[in-house]
Amino acid sequence: MNKDYIIPNEWSIVEEGFHIENITASESIFSIGNGAMGQRANFEETFSGETFQGSYVGGVYYPDKTRVGWWKNGYPEYFAKVLNAPNWIGINVNINGKALDLNTCKVSEFKRELNMKDGVLYRSFIAELPEGDQIKVNATRFLSLDFDEAGAIEYSVTPINFTGEIEFIPYIDAGIMNEDTNYDEFFWEILQIQEEKNEAYILSKTLKTEFHVCTGMQITFALNNHFITLDKEVEKSEKRIAFKYKSKVKQGDTFTIYKYGGYVQSMNHANEELISESKKVLQKAKEIGFDDLIQKQKDAWEKIWATSDIIIEGDIKAQQAIRFNIFQLNQTYSGEDSRLNIGPKGFTGEKYGGSTYWDTEAYCIPFYMSTKDKSVAKNLLLYRYNQLDRAIENAGKLGFKNGAALYPMVTMNGEECHNEWEITFEEIHRNGAMLYAIYNYVNYTGDFQYIPEFGMEVMVAISRFWQQRATFSKVKDQYVILGVTGPNEYENNVNNNFYTNYLAKWCMEYTLKNLDILQEEYHDDFKRIVAKTNLNQLELDQWKEVSEKMYFSYSKEHNVYLQQDGFLDKELIPVSNLPRSERPINQKWSWDRILRSVYIKQADVLQGLYFFENNFETKTIEEHFDFYEPFTVHESSLSPCVHSILACKIDRLEKAYELYLRTARLDLDDYNHEVHEGLHITSMAGTWLSIVQGFGGMRNFDNKLSFAPQIPKKWKSYSFKINYRGAILKMYKDHEGNKFTNESEAPVDILVHGKKVTVSPNELVTL
Amino acid sequence: MNKDYIIPNEWSIVEEGFHIENITASESIFSIGNGAMGQRANFEETFSGETFQGSYVGGVYYPDKTRVGWWKNGYPEYFAKVLNAPNWIGINVNINGKALDLNTCKVSEFKRELNMKDGVLYRSFIAELPEGDQIKVNATRFLSLDFDEAGAIEYSVTPINFTGEIEFIPYIDAGIMNEDTNYDEFFWEILQIQEEKNEAYILSKTLKTEFHVCTGMQITFALNNHFITLDKEVEKSEKRIAFKYKSKVKQGDTFTIYKYGGYVQSMNHANEELISESKKVLQKAKEIGFDDLIQKQKDAWEKIWATSDIIIEGDIKAQQAIRFNIFQLNQTYSGEDSRLNIGPKGFTGEKYGGSTYWDTEAYCIPFYMSTKDKSVAKNLLLYRYNQLDRAIENAGKLGFKNGAALYPMVTMNGEECHNEWEITFEEIHRNGAMLYAIYNYVNYTGDFQYIPEFGMEVMVAISRFWQQRATFSKVKDQYVILGVTGPNEYENNVNNNFYTNYLAKWCMEYTLKNLDILQEEYHDDFKRIVAKTNLNQLELDQWKEVSEKMYFSYSKEHNVYLQQDGFLDKELIPVSNLPRSERPINQKWSWDRILRSVYIKQADVLQGLYFFENNFETKTIEEHFDFYEPFTVHESSLSPCVHSILACKIDRLEKAYELYLRTARLDLDDYNHEVHEGLHITSMAGTWLSIVQGFGGMRNFDNKLSFAPQIPKKWKSYSFKINYRGAILKMYKDHEGNKFTNESEAPVDILVHGKKVTVSPNELVTL
Repeated sequence: MNKDYIIPNEWSIVEEGFHIENITASESIFSIGNGAMGQRANFEETFSGETFQGSYVGGVYYPDKTRVGWWKNGYPEYFAKVLNAPNWIGINVNINGKALDLNTCKVSEFKRELNMKDGVLYRSFIAELPEGDQIKVNATRFLSLDFDEAGAIEYSVTPINFTGEIEFIPYIDAGIMNEDTNYDEFFWEILQIQEEKNEAYILSKTLKTEFHVCTGMQITFALNNHFITLDKEVEKSEKRIAFKYKSKVKQGDTFTIYKYGGYVQSMNHANEELISESKKVLQKAKEIGFDDLIQKQKDAWEKIWATSDIIIEGDIKAQQAIRFNIFQLNQTYSGEDSRLNIGPKGFTGEKYGGSTYWDTEAYCIPFYMSTKDKSVAKNLLLYRYNQLDRAIENAGKLGFKNGAALYPMVTMNGEECHNEWEITFEEIHRNGAMLYAIYNYVNYTGDFQYIPEFGMEVMVAISRFWQQRATFSKVKDQYVILGVTGPNEYENNVNNNFYTNYLAKWCMEYTLKNLDILQEEYHDDFKRIVAKTNLNQLELDQWKEVSEKMYFSYSKEHNVYLQQDGFLDKELIPVSNLPRSERPINQKWSWDRILRSVYIKQADVLQGLYFFENNFETKTIEEHFDFYEPFTVHESSLSPCVHSILACKIDRLEKAYELYLRTARLDLDDYNHEVHEGLHITSMAGTWLSIVQGFGGMRNFDNKLSFAPQIPKKWKSYSFKINYRGAILKMYKDHEGNKFTNESEAPVDILVHGKKVTVSPNELVTL
Repeated sequence: MNKDYIIPNEWSIVEEGFHIENITASESIFSIGNGAMGQRANFEETFSGETFQGSYVGGVYYPDKTRVGWWKNGYPEYFAKVLNAPNWIGINVNINGKALDLNTCKVSEFKRELNMKDGVLYRSFIAELPEGDQIKVNATRFLSLDFDEAGAIEYSVTPINFTGEIEFIPYIDAGIMNEDTNYDEFFWEILQIQEEKNEAYILSKTLKTEFHVCTGMQITFALNNHFITLDKEVEKSEKRIAFKYKSKVKQGDTFTIYKYGGYVQSMNHANEELISESKKVLQKAKEIGFDDLIQKQKDAWEKIWATSDIIIEGDIKAQQAIRFNIFQLNQTYSGEDSRLNIGPKGFTGEKYGGSTYWDTEAYCIPFYMSTKDKSVAKNLLLYRYNQLDRAIENAGKLGFKNGAALYPMVTMNGEECHNEWEITFEEIHRNGAMLYAIYNYVNYTGDFQYIPEFGMEVMVAISRFWQQRATFSKVKDQYVILGVTGPNEYENNVNNNFYTNYLAKWCMEYTLKNLDILQEEYHDDFKRIVAKTNLNQLELDQWKEVSEKMYFSYSKEHNVYLQQDGFLDKELIPVSNLPRSERPINQKWSWDRILRSVYIKQADVLQGLYFFENNFETKTIEEHFDFYEPFTVHESSLSPCVHSILACKIDRLEKAYELYLRTARLDLDDYNHEVHEGLHITSMAGTWLSIVQGFGGMRNFDNKLSFAPQIPKKWKSYSFKINYRGAILKMYKDHEGNKFTNESEAPVDILVHGKKVTVSPNELVTL
């Protein structure tokens, strides 16, 4: 049973009615963030029902001692975790001395709205306390895009049936835990609690990693929209500070508290200045005031939507879903800081604790690259460039030499922090994605300069890895890659995974090709890189030899590359013959059964064909799609999008649409019954890809931008914008045809279904 | 650097001199046991230096909550652990009010001797306390074979340079922990502490499993060998009871405490009778008295040695080693209780916490079968027979149906308690060992009756498993077994492991063959079994089909069966080319590197050739030995013995001897730097096999007992005894020839180097 309580709306996520069983799901879905910080949609006031509290500061992590049953050499000592940070949103409310707690009240007219156009979260309800007092509450909250260390809350209470005393108790609580600590440790040390008039600050640092974070709050009040001042009482304990403000309020009056709060942290400021910086930021927010801040928030989001919106007509749920995905991606990563990245759950939960996976390179970069300035994608590349030393160190731990790099499967600071041998040590295809992302970036943006300046060092280190990782098979007289896990994690320790071998071969070839270009056209850079990396001709010869003689397992009978050696020994029973009761197999079957079955978790061979579509005939893609898709259970959120894109490519629009539906509303409709743990942020980029590269058919090979637009029957029209080398191109598609516009100042040449079209500035091209 | 401090001696393990760094190693090596209980050689008196305390009651375990990093469906919730039981050996000693603690004394003339002929542990030393008082201590301890719920200690102190007060504080301490608890839990609940005159009892039960154990002590004293009585002071706390006895002792006098203690437990008695039973047992021991008890102990061990001794002349270290191995195996399992089994560390440590591995079936049964009455091996078979329901349940958890059984990798009570998917779910060859043990037993003892009575139910369930576990490969038109780990655990999730496939095929064939015999000759049993197991003809046809069409990977180039599919893709670099600094690879390499290397942890293909030697030409064995042994790192203690046996078979006596040396003194010389964790009990059976089946060439195929004796150059002679179908045969081999004697009443026909020889009772046959 999927959850299906979110009300369709073009620009908002809306929940109506108070359903206690949806609280933790809504806490995920209504999450807000501004790239620098984010938080689950926990209530401001106390709530004694089930809740999953979460507020996160970008880049701040803790190395939780790894939990493992059977240690293997090479396992990391710790698993870096996003950290639940001190709670600054808390405002407890007492009505005539009794705590407002929706778990004990009669609640009516409960409504939540996450307005995605403006980036603001609204909540309102009427509560009747056990004693009979009725109040109306309106709460508005957002994390500022303009001032990314600040957030603001407006929280109003109106007595409906009484005149009495209302008490607001805003607080900061640094006594928070992660839900997923391995050994129930407390990760924060409280250094200082400072309070002034209507302000308070808690300076705390993470144990071990010593990130210093100042959590602050500044408070103002209004009665019926007129600012008032109130005396406070202070309640201070070791890890928490609260102010108590009481006021007599008449029936019908609206008593409002404004709370400005947020985090200022040591990645951006000196430790000793954190409190004063926090004070400064919140002072400024307070001076601007809630209404003007909210206006700035709307303006900032308007700018984002101007280059990234996708409009779908005729299917309001699809419209809502795609905006939700774009909105959440923008909440998670703003692109301004190359030290940050996109965690699979963003700022919406703790699962997959470590932040960065290959999801970023394989799925997210194309989204950010097409909807933002190229500096954003570049920052994501630089994140890995800056961690190259750690990747070399990581490869060293596994026995690789001479500057070979293996990027980690999961990381916060460049060190590996995952510990399943079949993934940590063997899911090495991730290393290829790092190089693919460089290629993808250079290809799309035309910024070749990135390669001599940064990319080549990474490329050399990765090519070294692949050459050392390959084994010469005497019997095959070719190079094999033994003992890997491909993107399809339902196979472990297999030999000659097609995707891995293909990527390895391609990496070495692409590196060699670009080394040639550098040697001819960027000679100084070339010399610098050769010196820095100790590159020698023998290595280049080895890369050439290994890439030329790379082995691929192929079936003549089926006309397909085999996912790995021995794949055809399996029982080839399609998913359609698998009883529904046995699925998802990752919940119903033991691991050995999954492994020896034919079932595929997510695109594997097809992921390769998707990445390198230009190297394959459409017929080849079709044959592989027809062979592999029937065995694919899509039990990864990253699976349907790739299949949807390829289905469009081979003119299977209905199949494409079916697969698209599995990704678009994954979280809104909670297909996997896990939305309470957080949102699937990185797979949201896949949804975007399904429309732009899938239905829109956008491609960018050989410096040519092309489209092959199709439209699902159910939709009236759809349109998207992309930023292509500085030009904002808009593509509109309906059942009549296509329209293109160009918001830049120079014409852009594109191919539409293979036909060359020039889109000039401010011209509407109709096809 | 191996430890090498044990003094060579034919019948004793001897340590001389007090070396603090050897304490924990000696605690393992000098362990004592009587099959029902066992203990490490911890000191009686307090010791503030490093020590690993351990005392264990056979069959008493605790389900420790499993520690695991990444959960997989099918993992067990707990890991059954041998339990450190309440300490009953403790006798603290105060000299003029100061505690005797060897960690703070000047120690001289320290000597330990484990007399294996008699089964008694001796310790003596002179200690000078910090205050200058010198004493001489003699401690003698043993666990009675005759009364296996009792042990006895004689502990004497003689003042050398003073007359003063000596205090003995015998105690029982139930406040003990396991060193390897996963979550630092306390596993015992104390139910009752009872004290009488010079007796005390602590009744405790294990949490969850609710084993009830009464630990008791009874105390007497002597001064210069005359019994005396002393008043006591009682010191009692929640988990411990101690008695304090003081006496003035003159210089040169010997003050002795006798402590009778041990465990009485709920597997053998009603809970409410445990204290009274314990009282009864200790009372009896006390009445018999220390000297007579020790005489009985000597008599009991004499009986054991009479049928199991191996005599090696000309190599005292080899002599000591083989007796140590035989001694420890007998201390671990007496064969009287089919609920008990042989843990890899016996009663000498906590590692591998769960008790029973396939080691029992593959290595230990032949030892017990040849050195004891057949009832002992039968009890070991019945252990598994009695756990068949659990094995069926276990297979069910992994998706197998219709009464298929998968015996656990590690177990205490029949439930699986190991949690590495590549082992728990995939190291399924263990299932074949269960059936092989039945075959081996019937073959050696001639007790075919075991099959209709018990064995066939197990055989049916295991054959069902293999048939369901095999996959029909369309491309091969044969059955394959995908995703397994063979005995060589340095390969995981491989396809068509030769050993596994061979065993699977053989299991089904052997079951079918015996079903035919049952149908013809044991028709009632046949009918009963068919009804009980719901066996039908279709299944039998399937077994036939799968076993006939089982796939084996074979290399024509090398003339060998391949360990698994794709083996030849590896780099075939022999161990001799591997730098010493890289070994042992399980400590130096990451797991992925080990997996994709050619290196073999222990016999795998060769384990199969060893089990089924009669199905292969000697030349075939030689070819496989020459192919695989050079890649074998022997990093399992179970590896060298199989290779040593096969090396004898193919006339490589020097190689055989080299390999024999790696197994014989593994613990005495602490080759693997881990003896402090406990002894490698199960591999000790492999050492025995290396002599009897290796140098002695004993085989038993087709109801023929055969020998092919050889002798290592370094030895003058060796001889061993075996119990063959009730006859005690002795084989003597020196460089002149062979001698056989027969201690039974009927002649026995044997083959010696293929020649038939009849050995008549009380006749010396010289060849």
